[in-house]
Amino acid sequence: MTDADLRGRAQKVVPGGMYGHLNAALFAPGYPQFFARGDGCRQWDVDGREYIDFMCSWGPVVLGHRHPRVEEAAARQAALGDCLNGPGPIMVELAELLVDTVPSADWAMFSKNGTDATTQALMVARAATGRTKVLMAHGAYHGADPWCTPSLSGTTPNERADLVEFAYNSLESLEAAAATVEGDVAAIIVTPFKHDSFEDQELVEPAFARGARALADRLGAALVIDDVRAGFRIDLRGSWEPYGVRPDLTAWSKAMANGYPIAAVTGTDALRGPAQTLYSTGSFWFSAVAMAAAKATIETLRDTGGIAAMEHAGTLLREGLHTQAKSHGFVVNQTGPVTIPWLSFDGDADLSTAMYWSDACLRHGVYLHPWHNWFMSAAHTEDDVARALEGTDQAFAETRAHLLAP
Amino acid sequence: MTDADLRGRAQKVVPGGMYGHLNAALFAPGYPQFFARGDGCRQWDVDGREYIDFMCSWGPVVLGHRHPRVEEAAARQAALGDCLNGPGPIMVELAELLVDTVPSADWAMFSKNGTDATTQALMVARAATGRTKVLMAHGAYHGADPWCTPSLSGTTPNERADLVEFAYNSLESLEAAAATVEGDVAAIIVTPFKHDSFEDQELVEPAFARGARALADRLGAALVIDDVRAGFRIDLRGSWEPYGVRPDLTAWSKAMANGYPIAAVTGTDALRGPAQTLYSTGSFWFSAVAMAAAKATIETLRDTGGIAAMEHAGTLLREGLHTQAKSHGFVVNQTGPVTIPWLSFDGDADLSTAMYWSDACLRHGVYLHPWHNWFMSAAHTEDDVARALEGTDQAFAETRAHLLAP
Repeated sequence: MTDADLRGRAQKVVPGGMYGHLNAALFAPGYPQFFARGDGCRQWDVDGREYIDFMCSWGPVVLGHRHPRVEEAAARQAALGDCLNGPGPIMVELAELLVDTVPSADWAMFSKNGTDATTQALMVARAATGRTKVLMAHGAYHGADPWCTPSLSGTTPNERADLVEFAYNSLESLEAAAATVEGDVAAIIVTPFKHDSFEDQELVEPAFARGARALADRLGAALVIDDVRAGFRIDLRGSWEPYGVRPDLTAWSKAMANGYPIAAVTGTDALRGPAQTLYSTGSFWFSAVAMAAAKATIETLRDTGGIAAMEHAGTLLREGLHTQAKSHGFVVNQTGPVTIPWLSFDGDADLSTAMYWSDACLRHGVYLHPWHNWFMSAAHTEDDVARALEGTDQAFAETRAHLLAP
Repeated sequence: MTDADLRGRAQKVVPGGMYGHLNAALFAPGYPQFFARGDGCRQWDVDGREYIDFMCSWGPVVLGHRHPRVEEAAARQAALGDCLNGPGPIMVELAELLVDTVPSADWAMFSKNGTDATTQALMVARAATGRTKVLMAHGAYHGADPWCTPSLSGTTPNERADLVEFAYNSLESLEAAAATVEGDVAAIIVTPFKHDSFEDQELVEPAFARGARALADRLGAALVIDDVRAGFRIDLRGSWEPYGVRPDLTAWSKAMANGYPIAAVTGTDALRGPAQTLYSTGSFWFSAVAMAAAKATIETLRDTGGIAAMEHAGTLLREGLHTQAKSHGFVVNQTGPVTIPWLSFDGDADLSTAMYWSDACLRHGVYLHPWHNWFMSAAHTEDDVARALEGTDQAFAETRAHLLAP
């Protein structure tokens, strides 16, 4: 069954043939829609094409597909049971691991989607403060529930009425946003760096991070870090720990269990009581297999220096792309942490060069993205990056030829 | 590690030691919190106590734990990959199976939580109508997002402002609710029968089901059946199909994949376009293993007459409990479909008799629930029910003795 065949069948039984962030219609034209398998840092589409993958399933796969230690832990748990009448001991072990690993965490609650975690974090903040408003950065992605989905389709004005936007990295803007709802700020929610789609990424200004912390304290509001996308790729202790800024609440998901479905909120002792007052739950939130996979993933990242490995491979990729772009006469912007990289072409406002180049990369066996940040995994070796750079080099050459063509 | 030890550890790292619908503190006093394993219709807690289980993990486990056909399908997919850069062919196959199985379904969209599905269904309805209000039955459970969670803690008035309540099974009440927001009704959302916690279940009045359908048509609103709890235990075609009433949208989850985490919305052709306009997605919504498990679960239910098997076992249980209760001098109410049963004691307003009896059942190896409906699975044999009835008989006797004690 080819990708084309499957697309034809999907058109009949799935709205638009596909939806959401994996909808290939939104990427460049050559992207496959359907995937057959994954192994380490490689994926194969249903037409049998092999890719060195720099999307890592949009974040979740942080150790590489079918990582032995994770698969073993998951299989051991699955042989006992997954979805039971109560959690397994693994829930306690995983919560303990998070509390031991993350300095701002005194407790953890588990769920399934990143959106579950961001939503739950705001519920805890609202329960704690008795207030309603949340300050969030304009354009930031915090999930796809009606309160936060980037498209307004299917949402109501009431569902978005408790949000006040500020500009990322602008303390002035943050303070102005707070002033518009004085006395009613429950939380400031913020991603650890600016990773909005379609534009260059921006690291947080340390002064902004510290200022957000100070403002939350002054307001008596919760500082919520949405670490769903970046968590476990910058610092296992939390992505603002290197800046010495600790949140009251953190939302986690994606990379937490190397592809198994899980999300979590961690929080401070002061918010433990309010967290207990919520009724927030789901049919599969206490399932044991994903928790076993999460524990094995975090321990493996810790024990094997997984983030350092990603940094090493990510640096090689960034340096290689820099040299190549230059040699082909392109000015490119490489932004964000090297473990969550992105490349844009200078002056490429309509992304047409990025589209052409990423499509060319695909043809040469390198899967990356024209308008969304990429993800490194600990499975990317020096050899994998070297092999990928062969593909990207040809893609730069083809892109140059395309631009020069009459 | 005993249940008591784990509770002590959990108190330190999980708010309240546990949260959500599996929080044993909310059941009768003897209930274990932590579970070690499951097999067929049996579960074992961490203290090694074995139960014939009538909660089925609150619905998901519909074929019994570790069902060979489901496990085989899941393992086969897992060996290839789960969370990839796109869905696998299995997404198309599963959507086709739902469209083939459910007469009201022309398409399907997948997610992880029942709440994802109910929320997504309302988004489709709102996108289709450009309206905001939703009519829902007072006391109905449609999930645990801020718009629908039964507790208001952590929610804001705006998040609930688009709901208008009616009384289940009252067409008059439904019409009155619609009249209060005339011209702005996007959807009527309704469970296939009244399965609110803490009270006797109530089957839908066929006239109410037909009236809700007619009202939705008259208003140009979507009729949404929330089949998350009841789906795949009443009729594979959808729980109102026996009444000849077809919804525009249906939310599915729980039993769909025998415990693997998945949810779905199915809808009619008329809503296909609006569904395409949503940005509704999640990191694990396209993962292939749960889809493979779902396909195997639905096919097994279909091919083996799974619902008929549950009806047979459920009828034996209901008849046995009826006879036992009578012989011990109790008047009990057994309500709901036999595949999603519940028993209450007449006049037991504070549920103290139900609490005592369910605790006694536990001690005799039968896991059921004092204030939430139970679930049958296709793994419950005549022998299992007979064995369970030995336990419930002793529990009735002990409950009688307890009530007679000075």
